[in-house]
Amino acid sequence: MNSKRQNRSHRIARVLCPILPTAGRPVCLDESEANHLHQVLRLRNGDPVIALDGKGAEVSAQIQYREKTIWLVTGMQNPSRRLPLDAETTPLVLEVAILKGDAMSWLIEKAVELGVRRLVPLECDYGVVEIAKKGTEHFVERWQRIADQALKQCERLHQMKVDSPRSVPEALKERAPHRWVAIEPSAGFTEARPIEFLAQELHVMIGPEGGWSPSECDVFRAELKQGHLKLASLGPLVLRAETASLFVMSSALQAKIN
Amino acid sequence: MNSKRQNRSHRIARVLCPILPTAGRPVCLDESEANHLHQVLRLRNGDPVIALDGKGAEVSAQIQYREKTIWLVTGMQNPSRRLPLDAETTPLVLEVAILKGDAMSWLIEKAVELGVRRLVPLECDYGVVEIAKKGTEHFVERWQRIADQALKQCERLHQMKVDSPRSVPEALKERAPHRWVAIEPSAGFTEARPIEFLAQELHVMIGPEGGWSPSECDVFRAELKQGHLKLASLGPLVLRAETASLFVMSSALQAKIN
Repeated sequence: MNSKRQNRSHRIARVLCPILPTAGRPVCLDESEANHLHQVLRLRNGDPVIALDGKGAEVSAQIQYREKTIWLVTGMQNPSRRLPLDAETTPLVLEVAILKGDAMSWLIEKAVELGVRRLVPLECDYGVVEIAKKGTEHFVERWQRIADQALKQCERLHQMKVDSPRSVPEALKERAPHRWVAIEPSAGFTEARPIEFLAQELHVMIGPEGGWSPSECDVFRAELKQGHLKLASLGPLVLRAETASLFVMSSALQAKIN
Repeated sequence: MNSKRQNRSHRIARVLCPILPTAGRPVCLDESEANHLHQVLRLRNGDPVIALDGKGAEVSAQIQYREKTIWLVTGMQNPSRRLPLDAETTPLVLEVAILKGDAMSWLIEKAVELGVRRLVPLECDYGVVEIAKKGTEHFVERWQRIADQALKQCERLHQMKVDSPRSVPEALKERAPHRWVAIEPSAGFTEARPIEFLAQELHVMIGPEGGWSPSECDVFRAELKQGHLKLASLGPLVLRAETASLFVMSSALQAKIN
């Protein structure tokens, strides 16, 4: 029983490059992807990789060291694959409060695996993470890096874009035909109901551990009156913010594959 | 915007005691629950708590220090609550490979929040956690403690029991009218399909990162022939073991609340 199956990390390495190589047209990898192949995976000249453009296409290639850069070379016969967005993602845009360190990384990873199309981090009044200090850029880069890493791991072809963080009122400026807001029973709203997962794009807003603030609730009330959003009920128990998100992402996937 | 809402940890403490106090019949807390109230939450004589029996009932009570023990006292007028199992759990028994440290704790916590009824840890041939060294008891106690902690956090009333670990063949000895096994496309089985979530009890088996072993697959084939299990497909992407579990738990909850 000790002969473990070949470890996943021994699968052919996957590498993101926005423009894929074609026969006779090698492409140069950006520094961070090159460093990963060289220093972490210790790949050598001629080793096979799978190059993905993050927009739905991949192609098998070999790596070629040229001085301090790494290039990808492919041929006419190299296997390639292309998938439409719908085939591997759900029509879900997750608008979620920025969670504390590990929970946020974890959530992003799971969002990619479960096929979420786009993730919008919300800076909520009662959120606990202050991103102003380190600068928004720092966070967005880190989150996108986590998402891209998960992309390769789960063999997804379309990048999940992590947007810049925004407040609830800013997020609501992006009009969505179907937007649901997860509301705790204690927030004093009635008429919450289970989300209907449709084939069309769906935005779902999920608040921080501390709940929505009174001023955010006022904004929701105004939007509700105008029919711009619906209130979502997520079952009988008290869910943490990341569990609520997972529940919504999983339900969207379940609706899609059924 | 800085006046954060009262922190969740300031909610009234919840405490597990298998036999609830009634008017005139105080009960003595076990050592670990008493220590938690005393040393972690620093509660004082007369402080209110909510006592839950883990079997569907809770009652408001006050704590009373008596020498080195803590007792719970309640009265006729104290609010109480009782819920049937169906009201707050899904009919899901999750039979899942033992995952590495954090992933397992995390999975157990989420399972409680998402209403899983029972969790059976599987010792799989390709699993990565060796529990024999530290002894099974140690692990089961730790897992149950995590589950009970989550129980209080999410205000669930029915304990999620974490069973003793067992092998796949042993787990299959427990006959289940509806058992699904999550199979990777690469395992060479055909006819996997999305799980049908029913009102009846449903067992779902999820393997380790490394997949099922050939001998486990043989066992599944034999069970399949006899109609004792079905093969589950979990969507187009490659899910990690914990994501697959979350997907299944969430889908069961979604099916229940819809």
